[in-house]
Amino acid sequence: MDEPQSRQACGLTACDHDERARGRLLRAAADVFDRKGYAAASVREIVEQAGITKPVLYYHFGSKEGMLVAILEEGARLFEQAVARALTCPGSVRQRVAALCEEVYSLFRDNVPAVRVAHALFFGPREGLPAFDFTKFERVLRPAITRLVEEGMATGELREAHPEDVSMAINGVIAGCTDQELNPCGTPVGIDGIHRVLDLIFDGLSATHNEKEN
Amino acid sequence: MDEPQSRQACGLTACDHDERARGRLLRAAADVFDRKGYAAASVREIVEQAGITKPVLYYHFGSKEGMLVAILEEGARLFEQAVARALTCPGSVRQRVAALCEEVYSLFRDNVPAVRVAHALFFGPREGLPAFDFTKFERVLRPAITRLVEEGMATGELREAHPEDVSMAINGVIAGCTDQELNPCGTPVGIDGIHRVLDLIFDGLSATHNEKEN
Repeated sequence: MDEPQSRQACGLTACDHDERARGRLLRAAADVFDRKGYAAASVREIVEQAGITKPVLYYHFGSKEGMLVAILEEGARLFEQAVARALTCPGSVRQRVAALCEEVYSLFRDNVPAVRVAHALFFGPREGLPAFDFTKFERVLRPAITRLVEEGMATGELREAHPEDVSMAINGVIAGCTDQELNPCGTPVGIDGIHRVLDLIFDGLSATHNEKEN
Repeated sequence: MDEPQSRQACGLTACDHDERARGRLLRAAADVFDRKGYAAASVREIVEQAGITKPVLYYHFGSKEGMLVAILEEGARLFEQAVARALTCPGSVRQRVAALCEEVYSLFRDNVPAVRVAHALFFGPREGLPAFDFTKFERVLRPAITRLVEEGMATGELREAHPEDVSMAINGVIAGCTDQELNPCGTPVGIDGIHRVLDLIFDGLSATHNEKEN
């Protein structure tokens, strides 16, 4: 009974320890897959980087393939949560669109290796890879944007237009800003930058409106 | 002297034949690299798909690696030409931004396998790959957008704002629209769609401006 007591003494349960080990392994795996590529990555390098033993890796994930699937599933889960948070924000459609862009951008920025690995798999050959439905991300983001756009048109907040075109304009801000984070030579846009770009597309790039307002 | 004469008879020079064979090999290689991945792709499969013999491949490219570099270099050359065409278009900054988006979008749409291969390499591990400077594309596109934005602000056509933010808004349209082409499950935006999305970001998504105008 010594060990549980000492764990309780530092405020951690066995479950907390398990979760920490799992998290460290996932971060190490994303990093090694990103640097070496999935095929060339070794379990040995992942456990060394995580500072955790092989049996713990096999206990949590079963195999290298299990780790890859877990990275993708975990990414999809966090993505879904981030989008849901933005949708339930209070405020105007414009404010919730900003929250949505912020959430997705922050998630990408905080998980660059995992997101790069997902992109490499998405653009690479499918052969020899575990089945993973990459449309999951699109199927979460697209209806969220559409819902905001339709609401904005219904209340008169947004201009009347093809909803898909408005969605594409908003999607473009997310794509353009996250691209900069994933590119080692990119110039990070930052949260303030996203808000400025969104203000521009909501108010219009053309000067005419500006003059009318002032 | 028979062969040159028969080539002249069908209007093709030896140089034309060479160029055609080269183009067919490049398209076949992009397609095979996209489907199988660069590492797993075989020269045999590329020449079979192109309907051209191995010695011709080695004559033009030297090796499989030579083909990959040629695909990327050719892509960078076409990209540079497309951007230059858009910049020299007559018309307003808005019209030239539209031309730029059209040119880049069309180039991507017409070369999906090559663009997917470039993306897979960009997001994948560098080890074992030929050196290729992926910043080439960014270093062509970014100054082109910046030049248009600065001109638009100088003439009063564009709203006063951080030029990088306006560039990011325009870049987002290109990123969002081309992403749809590269994604097998995406919904192609089309040239008309790009123009509608650009109209939206130039005029603003918010309804207030619309009401003022009408």
